[in-house]
Amino acid sequence: MRDTHVTMAHGGGGRAMKELIEAVFTSVFQPESSEDQARLMAAALQEPGARLAFTTDSFVVTPLEFPGGDIGKLAVCGTVNDLAVGGARPLWLSAAFIIEEGCEIALLRRIAATMAAEAQSAGVRIVTGDTKVVERGKGDGVFVTTSGIGVIPPGCDIGAAHIQPGDAVIVNGVLGDHGATILAARGDLALSTDIQSDCASLGALMQAALAAAPLHAARDCTRGGLASALNELATEAGVAVEIDEALLPLRPEVVGVCEILGLDPLYLANEGRLVLFCPGASAPAILEAMRSLPEGEGAVVIGQVKPGPAGQVSMRTRFGGARRVDMLVGEQLPRIC
Amino acid sequence: MRDTHVTMAHGGGGRAMKELIEAVFTSVFQPESSEDQARLMAAALQEPGARLAFTTDSFVVTPLEFPGGDIGKLAVCGTVNDLAVGGARPLWLSAAFIIEEGCEIALLRRIAATMAAEAQSAGVRIVTGDTKVVERGKGDGVFVTTSGIGVIPPGCDIGAAHIQPGDAVIVNGVLGDHGATILAARGDLALSTDIQSDCASLGALMQAALAAAPLHAARDCTRGGLASALNELATEAGVAVEIDEALLPLRPEVVGVCEILGLDPLYLANEGRLVLFCPGASAPAILEAMRSLPEGEGAVVIGQVKPGPAGQVSMRTRFGGARRVDMLVGEQLPRIC
Repeated sequence: MRDTHVTMAHGGGGRAMKELIEAVFTSVFQPESSEDQARLMAAALQEPGARLAFTTDSFVVTPLEFPGGDIGKLAVCGTVNDLAVGGARPLWLSAAFIIEEGCEIALLRRIAATMAAEAQSAGVRIVTGDTKVVERGKGDGVFVTTSGIGVIPPGCDIGAAHIQPGDAVIVNGVLGDHGATILAARGDLALSTDIQSDCASLGALMQAALAAAPLHAARDCTRGGLASALNELATEAGVAVEIDEALLPLRPEVVGVCEILGLDPLYLANEGRLVLFCPGASAPAILEAMRSLPEGEGAVVIGQVKPGPAGQVSMRTRFGGARRVDMLVGEQLPRIC
Repeated sequence: MRDTHVTMAHGGGGRAMKELIEAVFTSVFQPESSEDQARLMAAALQEPGARLAFTTDSFVVTPLEFPGGDIGKLAVCGTVNDLAVGGARPLWLSAAFIIEEGCEIALLRRIAATMAAEAQSAGVRIVTGDTKVVERGKGDGVFVTTSGIGVIPPGCDIGAAHIQPGDAVIVNGVLGDHGATILAARGDLALSTDIQSDCASLGALMQAALAAAPLHAARDCTRGGLASALNELATEAGVAVEIDEALLPLRPEVVGVCEILGLDPLYLANEGRLVLFCPGASAPAILEAMRSLPEGEGAVVIGQVKPGPAGQVSMRTRFGGARRVDMLVGEQLPRIC
């Protein structure tokens, strides 16, 4: 392929499009057939009682490349994680690209390469895809939409509805690295940090936790951060959640960035962090299982579930007080994922 | 919901986003749970030998609403059709929206309503979704990405590899209505026509054809039109395809628009048209089955498969000559779907 930049012809359905797709995407993702739909079979799907998990996310992060990842890694991890936190084993992904005219083809190649590498390490295959091209000024480089299919094995049933008073609340590592990284990478704040995005696939971590001891629910803490995930879960479960400021794993650099900018790390986005609810008795075994994997090294209990008031999330501060941790109002950081 | 237009806060992961999603999308699509992944079970999936079909498409059509449909109808039909032409019964869709700041919420509501209605009539459910917001000038109203899952029943195996010399080539109706409609709807050509997009879900039509007689392959004729679909299939199958100009179903208005603009209707996009390959002996039964449904009323044989030269598509003209029908070079009409 000799073109260096995407033109409108690359979206036209003809020869140029075919070339772009073959040179940049299918040569890297290697789908099994040239049909427009992947045809898949998995023994796991046919086990009686197995359920299929299905999820989708669009990614519009800016900048497209940042320390610790790029939009492609984000798109694979994000969709893998949405499947994983529901107890599913992620199997197959689709990838759809909306490309702005003028986008550098070398950039698309780098993104496709990251996606293929991340998919391989997460044990999933990118089996089908699509490309569209929009005129200059009608998009922003490239947007990526991934959808994912996984299998929830028979007997696995986790979710907000299972959360109980007394449950331990666990996170798998320091909070806010992704949000702080994107902030710093945008450049206009003249922040210089060594923080990298936490962007990671959490399929193996969830499987390890599920195998270790009974657990009730998990959710990835992306847009809106830990605070938003806790609020959603507390509302859906009709319970209260109390976290302890002294137990929160926070990197001093992230706290620093937040102090300068007046942000709250509880609302900073993460892309490789989840919050997990389990019976108090399960916590030691689950923590041990999580800590045995690099993406769970920093796993800690940060709080517990109370009977009520339903939907309320609060934090015991370092000074012994308590403050309400509400749902994010307004926007903290646009286009974080 | 009191906002009338989308702001960046609607993409922030907090309260405003939750409101937008509930008011505009989940209240209409009614997914079964508030978890971020749909959890699905279908008896059809557990039949021994059943395969899962998985596909994705982004839609960036402009204008967003046009005679005969809108971007939402297109997104449902396009993904249903990608599943259907592979022999799958479409079951579940995901829908991801990339919304430009300033987009009218009433427009989003209309799009969601069309999607829900089309999904219902096609017999599929929209089970999971996502919304992102990008700044004004970094998107174009709204882009929609749908992914779809269907089940290919045991024993059903169609695709380009099965096409044989002697096969009849069938289309299900007049060609080019969608392309001509979008052209006219863009306004700057001052064309006034009564043509409507052919946008339609073809799941029932494919099932009827499959039940009627053995068939080898089918493909929807979208971007790049009939010519591109035939070229792809001829190349993948290693055969030649010869179509007959006198047999092509063309609406005089579409021919007129093409003549004015110097376009070729063979390359105009369709969104409710497929081309189907079957043994000559199957053709009468398949035509009869297709014609019994509104979306197949205009079904006709337009040509047949020859042993070679591999990958070559040609057309016998009305004047007894022959011309090569090549893959589209360059772009004919940007952002048609």
